[in-house]
This record gives sequence, C-alpha cells and structure tokens, in this order.
Amino acid sequence: MLSSWNDGPTKSAIVDFVGRVTAESGPDFVSPEERVAVFDNDGTLWCEKPMYIQLDFLLRRFKEQAEADPTLRDKQPYKAATDADYAWLGDAVTKHYQGDDTDFNILAGAILKAHNAITVEEHAGRINAFFADARHPTLDRPYTSCGYAPMVELIRYLEGHGFTCYIVSGGGRDFMRPITGPLYGIPPERVVGSAVGLVYKDANVYTTDELEFFDDGPVKPVRLWNRIGRRPILAAGNSNGDIEMLEFTDASSHPSLQLLVLHDDADREFDYTAGAEKSLDEAAKAGWTVVSMKNDWASVFSD
Amino acid sequence: MLSSWNDGPTKSAIVDFVGRVTAESGPDFVSPEERVAVFDNDGTLWCEKPMYIQLDFLLRRFKEQAEADPTLRDKQPYKAATDADYAWLGDAVTKHYQGDDTDFNILAGAILKAHNAITVEEHAGRINAFFADARHPTLDRPYTSCGYAPMVELIRYLEGHGFTCYIVSGGGRDFMRPITGPLYGIPPERVVGSAVGLVYKDANVYTTDELEFFDDGPVKPVRLWNRIGRRPILAAGNSNGDIEMLEFTDASSHPSLQLLVLHDDADREFDYTAGAEKSLDEAAKAGWTVVSMKNDWASVFSD
Repeated sequence: MLSSWNDGPTKSAIVDFVGRVTAESGPDFVSPEERVAVFDNDGTLWCEKPMYIQLDFLLRRFKEQAEADPTLRDKQPYKAATDADYAWLGDAVTKHYQGDDTDFNILAGAILKAHNAITVEEHAGRINAFFADARHPTLDRPYTSCGYAPMVELIRYLEGHGFTCYIVSGGGRDFMRPITGPLYGIPPERVVGSAVGLVYKDANVYTTDELEFFDDGPVKPVRLWNRIGRRPILAAGNSNGDIEMLEFTDASSHPSLQLLVLHDDADREFDYTAGAEKSLDEAAKAGWTVVSMKNDWASVFSD
Repeated sequence: MLSSWNDGPTKSAIVDFVGRVTAESGPDFVSPEERVAVFDNDGTLWCEKPMYIQLDFLLRRFKEQAEADPTLRDKQPYKAATDADYAWLGDAVTKHYQGDDTDFNILAGAILKAHNAITVEEHAGRINAFFADARHPTLDRPYTSCGYAPMVELIRYLEGHGFTCYIVSGGGRDFMRPITGPLYGIPPERVVGSAVGLVYKDANVYTTDELEFFDDGPVKPVRLWNRIGRRPILAAGNSNGDIEMLEFTDASSHPSLQLLVLHDDADREFDYTAGAEKSLDEAAKAGWTVVSMKNDWASVFSD
C-alpha cells in the first residue's frame, strides 16, 4: 500500500498514525465510527493552478451566456470571459486584496447568477457535460485526470483501515459532487463545500443566486460539524483557508494527524506557496506534517 | 423479517417495493448508492405526545436556568416551566396559529438561548445526561424506549437491502444526534434537522442563539439535498410538515415509496390527526401508503 508515496518521514507518520488508532489493544485506539478524515479539495486532492477548475467552468458559462444574450457581450465579466482576458479577472482579485471590491463584486454577482433557477439535477447535468471534455490548460490532461494519485491512494488506505473520508472544500459543494465519485471514490453525501441557497418548488429543488455559505477558514469546522457531527481525527489541506480545520482536528481528544500539502514540484505540477504562507507557519509551530509533492510523492498523477 | 408488522396491504406494499428496486434483472432496479430512505422523527420514529421530547428537555433547562438566576423566576417561559404550567405553553402555540405571536416569540427566544455559547461536545453531554434518566410522562417508559419497534425494524430491513437511511426532522439536529445511534442505529452524520448557527473559536465549535434553519415543510427537501445530494426513493412522515419531502420523493425518476404514519392507537400510543390533516388528504390524492399504528403494527414498542 501507499506505493505512490516515497519512503521517508511523511509516509512513516501516516502509517504510524493509522497503526496506532487501529490497534485494538493499544492506548490510542479509536473506534471505526470515530475515524473521520477530512480533505480540502483544490490544491489538496487536485490541481488549483493556473486557476481553480471551477473558475474555468464558470468562465465557459459566462461566454455561453454572452453568446445567448448579446447585451452581456460588453459587460464584465462576460467580456473578459469571451475575450479570454484573464488579466481583468486576476486584477479583480488583486484589487480585492488591496481593499477595492468594485470588480470583485461584479465577478461574484455573475458567479451567483451563472446557474440560477435550475433544478439541482439540471445543475449536475451541466457539470457532467463540462467534465466530459474539458482539459487542463497546461498539464495536457483532462480535468478528470488532475486528481493526485497519492492522495487518492491515501483515501483508499484510510478506508481500508475503517476510516470514513469526506471532502471539506471552499469549492462549490454541488459543483464537486458529480465528479468526486469517479475521481476519488467519495460519494455526494460526503462532499462538504460552499453553496448557494436552494429553494423548493413543485416537487423540485432549485438553485438561487444567493450565497448560502462560503466554506473557508473558520467556516470549515462549522460546516463539517453541520454535516458530520463528529470531530475528525485526520485533516489534510494546503492553504491558509485550511488552518482552522487543521486546528479543530488537532484539538481532538483522540490522537490526530494533520497533513499540509506543499506545492514544490514545478516539474510535475506547480511550485508556489502564495496563499499558504500562514498555514506553513502554523504547521511548523504545531508540528503538522508537511507533505512535499516533490520529495514525498513517487508519482503525482495516476497515468 | 418485519415480524412487528401485521400481514396486510401496508406490509405488502413495503416488501413489494423493496423487492422491485433490488431485483437486478428487473425494470425497476435502483443501484444501492441511490437507495436513499428518509425518515421524519417526531411521530414517525418516536412519540411526540403529549409534547415533543425536545420540549421536555428544554423545559427542564428553563427550570434549571431559573434556579441558577432568580431574576428569571417570574418571567416567561421560565415561570411556566418552573410551575409546570403547560397551559401557558399550549396557549402560546394556539395564539401563534391565531396570529398572535407575542408569547410564541418569548418562548422561541428562550429556546434559542437555552444552550447558547457552549461547545458542541458540551451540548451533546447535556443531551446524554437528559436521556440517562428522563421518562415519558404517561407511557411509563424511559424516552430511550419510545422509539417505534416496527419503524426500527423497517430501517434494519432497508439497510439489509442496500438502503442508506437518514433522519430528516423538524427537531434539533444536534439534539437528536447523541440518541439516534442507540435508538435507531442511525449515526450522527445521517441526522438532518433544525439547527442554531454555530461559530468557530479557539479550536472549538460553539452554539449561538441564532436560528440557522427550521427544517420543516418545504425546507426538508432543501436540507436533505444539502446533506445527501441525492433524491430519496423512500420517505416516511406523519404530519403536514412532511408533505414536501414526500412529494419530492414521489417525483423521483426511480420507483419510490411514501409512508405516512397514522396515529390511531389510543390503547398502545395516542390517537390524533391534528397537524396531519393536510398530509392525509395528500396521501389519499397521491396514493401514498398510510400506516395505521393500530392495524399494521403487531407491536408498537420493543418491550
């Protein structure tokens, strides 16, 4: 098992932890129903560069909306999406962090309107259609092959030891659900994420254009409690938005393991720490296990 | 199997449905991961008369709060709780339905404040302490023995046929979670219900005194989609608050079964239709299966 992980301290930390909590006669035994593991998605289970896969999905939708309604063609973010003007999109985010939310709010409003007032089943159909042929812009592979093989193998390894694995992501819950089964073997009922409000009408559940919650940072432990009702004993993340989930897991009354995936592999994936600086500091302070993609993973993708 | 169910059309409807959806070569086959069954709790899985069990829990808490803080002693609903003045409580609800929410709002405010600003684990501890010795006021049994044996047997029967069973209740999600395992074999992650907002602080998740959602009526299909991400093929309820959940299930693209528990057994439990009138009308119109406690159940409780 864990053949896509190189031998070394990281793999040992995982194997030792799982050995301890599953040793029935040992002092650290945790009953199977309490063996809950939570995984961030973007950057932890699959690629998040050069842009979130969900953002690619949304940009294609903006373009489609502009084609259907020419009055949108010269408005942002439809114009940027149609012209593939990623600078406008990048600037909107940069300006947001500089305190100017003008463009960011325009983008957020369009995101919430992109799939408004359709049934949840129709929404799932659009996502399946996207993943049927969308490819990663630089890695020369379909998005459905952008999951990290060592993490998928870890999920199987944990399940083989009685764990139940959940995704707890800032990404859209109902965006992820149709694809987490094929990619990671995680069913829709174990996907926790951001969501728009839903509304019931005439025997169907419809999307709205209101944000219900953004599942990031301190919201992650709250949403996972809402969904699971147990404190996890293993958490894996890769960015500042995962700190509270890792912290919450670390404070378990049981032994626990915290994994932080470090993107340090420019050859096989990407090399960046932007957005993860604080989580790396916390990992060093708290003794969390940093997973080096470059050193700890024998392979990154399954093919 | 189903030995606590009398032979007759209701039991046949259940057995026939399960036979159809599990027959691999048949036209109605549903894959195991799609076999989702949802159960209301109060009045469907356990007693809700003479008052909701959760209300008893809250009244004891009000009394405790009034003992700790004498300034509450003469205020409602603490006064009613201390004096066991159930008329005030009943009137508050009656007046609510007559359009006067004065007392109802006082009661609701106290309910939200009853367990405010404690960790979710401490909250679970209070619930376990309540169920350790609280008894039903008229049925001469502990609350932990107030689950309906035929429904628990049904849950096991469904699980034995590859179904996954969830509770989807108007009751408090985190009130039910500690007890649904021992009572029904349903773990916390499969309990959907009403909830106060939660907030993260210092590695813990705390209760707040804000209602996050009241999981009743049209909210039930929304909350169950949030939690499960699949449309159920079996739903069981007993009141007007279950209509939309039954309707949502009935509109599945798969074969589906709707059960409506009718309380018509004054000898063994209670006899009432108040609050269920509309659901009974809908059941007649839509062809849902009405479960007569008196005629369909060989036993009501397991002892």
